[in-house]
Amino acid sequence: MTAEPLRWESGALLVLDQRALPGEERWINCESVAQVADCIRTLAVRGAPAIGIAAAYGMALAAARGEDLDNAAATLRATRPTAVNLGWALDRALAAENADLLELARRVHAEQHEADRRLAQLGAARFAPGDRALTHCNAGALATGGYGTAGGVLRAAWEAGRLAEVWVDETRPLLQGARLTAWELERARIPHRVVTDSAAGSLLAAGVVDRIVVGADRIAANGDVANKIGTYPLAVLAARHGVPFYVAAPLSTIDPATPNGGAIPIEERDPAEVAPGAFNPAFDVTPAELVHAIFTEAGVLEAPYEDAIRDVFAR
Amino acid sequence: MTAEPLRWESGALLVLDQRALPGEERWINCESVAQVADCIRTLAVRGAPAIGIAAAYGMALAAARGEDLDNAAATLRATRPTAVNLGWALDRALAAENADLLELARRVHAEQHEADRRLAQLGAARFAPGDRALTHCNAGALATGGYGTAGGVLRAAWEAGRLAEVWVDETRPLLQGARLTAWELERARIPHRVVTDSAAGSLLAAGVVDRIVVGADRIAANGDVANKIGTYPLAVLAARHGVPFYVAAPLSTIDPATPNGGAIPIEERDPAEVAPGAFNPAFDVTPAELVHAIFTEAGVLEAPYEDAIRDVFAR
Repeated sequence: MTAEPLRWESGALLVLDQRALPGEERWINCESVAQVADCIRTLAVRGAPAIGIAAAYGMALAAARGEDLDNAAATLRATRPTAVNLGWALDRALAAENADLLELARRVHAEQHEADRRLAQLGAARFAPGDRALTHCNAGALATGGYGTAGGVLRAAWEAGRLAEVWVDETRPLLQGARLTAWELERARIPHRVVTDSAAGSLLAAGVVDRIVVGADRIAANGDVANKIGTYPLAVLAARHGVPFYVAAPLSTIDPATPNGGAIPIEERDPAEVAPGAFNPAFDVTPAELVHAIFTEAGVLEAPYEDAIRDVFAR
Repeated sequence: MTAEPLRWESGALLVLDQRALPGEERWINCESVAQVADCIRTLAVRGAPAIGIAAAYGMALAAARGEDLDNAAATLRATRPTAVNLGWALDRALAAENADLLELARRVHAEQHEADRRLAQLGAARFAPGDRALTHCNAGALATGGYGTAGGVLRAAWEAGRLAEVWVDETRPLLQGARLTAWELERARIPHRVVTDSAAGSLLAAGVVDRIVVGADRIAANGDVANKIGTYPLAVLAARHGVPFYVAAPLSTIDPATPNGGAIPIEERDPAEVAPGAFNPAFDVTPAELVHAIFTEAGVLEAPYEDAIRDVFAR
């Protein structure tokens, strides 16, 4: 019972409007690049891998309508700056030249499913029966268009009998944890409880969190991880309490061209999402030194990340 | 232009309904202990010192109506478990025997003003021109019935030219930062910006926070500090980034009878404040080792806190 955020039907991209979840299951019919770009910009579809897949379908729409592909890619690329999967998918489409771009988009989509499945299995292998995990934001099927990255690890661990329950950070300001992750866990019948983002500290201090697992929006060549705002504090708390802090992400989220976290552009969103005049960065950067392991479809990466990432891309 | 949360008028306690701020300035007229207890339980009045003052006025109401004082104290004591000022004010009223309890409540109220003023001056002396502070929840005049503890330190630092701006954690789930602290700072014309609670990590990493100052709901004999959920993660982040972490609180918030943070009862509030089925602890405990200094009206306490607290109560 996977929640599939993106569907191709009758020559159009159907986008599950994640802003309306869990209250309402509403689908947006996209027949143009502008509509796809709008869905990405307004977070109807969100999560780095899902954004990449949506962009690939957007390029297929542009090709089908005979539009200029460079313009289409520029429109899509301008939507959100942090997730590197977006640029990665667009570059793949632009490099494909005479290929069938719908076929390519479907391949990108299917590859994500396979990558998620593989990295979820690798991640779940690190769990032990009875483990209580904590996660932040949403990195499930809704965020990837596949099986989920961090969410996939939790599902695979649950299916393997290696997970007792999940603490779900509500994830301000847009509550992707309370709205989306809780909804996914409910559908998968995995025991879970929502907490405010700031409650993680006392959970860790109380010893009721055995592992933290999150997704990523971009991983730099040195292993620094950009992910939803609030991820970095979790990593710092995990280190203080000796709790493993894992990142689950496909290789398409790793950007060897970004040397370190300082070079990752951090999107600032509308203050109104928080309060009038607020400062509202959407992501933060967790330094590689705080990351126990990165689960990818090509294997589990561990420190030193610079070498591990170079090696995995050299293969 | 202090926002005074409690007023005694025509034989009744007027409580500024903080649940309605900043949208509406609504006053609740309390003529009975039950009404005062209700205001405390439902957070119409909140903040450890203000709760203590409200309870003192509640005892005056009981005395004026010839009610049983032990019953009245029991009703008020049962409202909220963490703030020690509540029990402290009730015990003072019960010990006063034949005294005028309205006179006593007025004294408790006035003493809070003086204590706030004094500790705010001591705290502000630690600030330097250009400093950018971060605070959590609300520990201003609204929380104390006086000048404010952490909020008082910020006001005094601003008046002394030792504060450039304040980062205000919105403070989920009830948004006391975004609603109350931002409102107070606006009225005092102190530059400030609201952020989500989980943004503090990236602010500290970016080097734009010079000091953190918070209030407290109860301080144990060893210096462990119970304060609004999310305080402990801030202290851990402050330690990582070498930023001083201060607690501002009157002596009435220190409980020599509570040996350490593990012995402080932590209130769990309605899950509905967060999400259905959520776990919603209202406070967390920051271990003394992470606290740079505690500003009190009797002086600045520093480690070793066990000794500092014993000495200040021996005086």
